[in-house]
Amino acid sequence: MTHHAPLFDDDFAQRFETLLRWRRDVRHFAPQPVAEQVMADLLAQAVLAPSVGHAQPWRFVRLRTPGLRAALADHVDEQNAVAAGEHAGHARYDDYVALKLHGIREAPEIMAVFCDEQPLAGHRLGIATMPEMLRYSCVAAIQTLWLAARLRGIGLGWVSILDPRTVTAMLDVPPQWSLIALLCIGYPAEPSDKPELEQRGWQSREPLADRVFER
Amino acid sequence: MTHHAPLFDDDFAQRFETLLRWRRDVRHFAPQPVAEQVMADLLAQAVLAPSVGHAQPWRFVRLRTPGLRAALADHVDEQNAVAAGEHAGHARYDDYVALKLHGIREAPEIMAVFCDEQPLAGHRLGIATMPEMLRYSCVAAIQTLWLAARLRGIGLGWVSILDPRTVTAMLDVPPQWSLIALLCIGYPAEPSDKPELEQRGWQSREPLADRVFER
Repeated sequence: MTHHAPLFDDDFAQRFETLLRWRRDVRHFAPQPVAEQVMADLLAQAVLAPSVGHAQPWRFVRLRTPGLRAALADHVDEQNAVAAGEHAGHARYDDYVALKLHGIREAPEIMAVFCDEQPLAGHRLGIATMPEMLRYSCVAAIQTLWLAARLRGIGLGWVSILDPRTVTAMLDVPPQWSLIALLCIGYPAEPSDKPELEQRGWQSREPLADRVFER
Repeated sequence: MTHHAPLFDDDFAQRFETLLRWRRDVRHFAPQPVAEQVMADLLAQAVLAPSVGHAQPWRFVRLRTPGLRAALADHVDEQNAVAAGEHAGHARYDDYVALKLHGIREAPEIMAVFCDEQPLAGHRLGIATMPEMLRYSCVAAIQTLWLAARLRGIGLGWVSILDPRTVTAMLDVPPQWSLIALLCIGYPAEPSDKPELEQRGWQSREPLADRVFER
């Protein structure tokens, strides 16, 4: 434990900006495995994220069963076919079906993140009016994990085209856990500082000025 | 734009770990203002966060009206009195009322973060079955802002003891925006690598092993 507050210099600040700029949602993975110690290090940093009331409501479920992985991939493909239907008849449809939206079959590591909606830790501090703060705490841990991974050259892909109840049932977790994310983790086939959806013309980055308001 | 994927060395990795360890939820602020350019830099880094479908659904509302700040502080104090009632008759009650849970009156900067639940950007990619992904994207931006702030010696406090509908009405935003966070931003009075709730015996950090499961 350091007892004096650290100062971060310009060199660190520049590299931190580079880290943010090269963090991508990865769907194309190289076959290289992620070392078990690296996975442990990523998780240890993820839980340095803030959590409401220090409730630490995150529950990480690592997938070890090949049959489960195949079932998850099939489920996401099905849900994706339904989602594609939203764009049917629109010029965007061809772009949609050309997108690779998950790497569940080939990513070296698959991990689900759940939120314990009734954690003992935290004694319910800060959630009387906003119970969603527990779920938001889990998201903060995921974003921390994402940056920790990128620092090590590892990519993460967050799959959301799925039915949370179906995936929750597949993974057989306690009833008070809700699914936050299904994550694919591995070395990216093509690191980039530009989002794939931007590269492929789906959606560009919008000006910050359009996102900031005053009251 | 760099065209070769960056490598991050051990020195950076160690300082990144230090950054994570010194990120705190701050409720005690020094009076020193945050320079306008620094606020702009923080926001510019926050929006490097991932967002579902690249929808960039975050909407940042900076508070400039003293009367609004006072009204928000009063509202949070009221809600906090209600929340304290949950602990009445329990040994924890005295600990609860001794906690300072927000710095709304004294923080140099107050900012609300909203999620646009119907963003034009992203063309609804990735939210057919999990519309909450839009809100989760906003949380990823907040955690990014949090780290960007800490890098600059600035603290952030996330206030969640409030009624989101009341605060949303106070801030007079479009009807499809939902409140994600009310943030206090400024230099911390006492930087620390230990959460205040841990220092005060409310809740300790739990072992990572209790958070990781396999299926």
